[in-house]
Amino acid sequence: MREELIQVEGMTCGHCKSAVEGAAAGVKGVTNAEVNLDKGNVLVKMEDNADLAKVIEEIEDQGYDVKK
Amino acid sequence: MREELIQVEGMTCGHCKSAVEGAAAGVKGVTNAEVNLDKGNVLVKMEDNADLAKVIEEIEDQGYDVKK
Repeated sequence: MREELIQVEGMTCGHCKSAVEGAAAGVKGVTNAEVNLDKGNVLVKMEDNADLAKVIEEIEDQGYDVKK
Repeated sequence: MREELIQVEGMTCGHCKSAVEGAAAGVKGVTNAEVNLDKGNVLVKMEDNADLAKVIEEIEDQGYDVKK
């Protein structure tokens, strides 16, 4: 298990929080995703072999920019 | 047919726009609802006998404040 803190731009409200958390949680191996709206990030807990790039891609597909 | 311009507080993003438009459009007699995020309002087109109070109630149920 590992944790990744991903900076996400453009999240403004509870809907955005749900969209980003749902996007991350849908990736294989992700066990939890929690957005902090004030800080503009999402803390993702995942299996060691989960695909971080895929997580980022799914978040971007929701219309948000990920700081890399 | 009539149009009502409703001031809505707290809409921040495209998800909010969809939520408010969907809430208004779900009321009987409403034929169109279009949110302007910059101006913080929603223009609702409805039959003469549509229930404006119900439209406002549905928007508030989505978690937004309507200025009356």
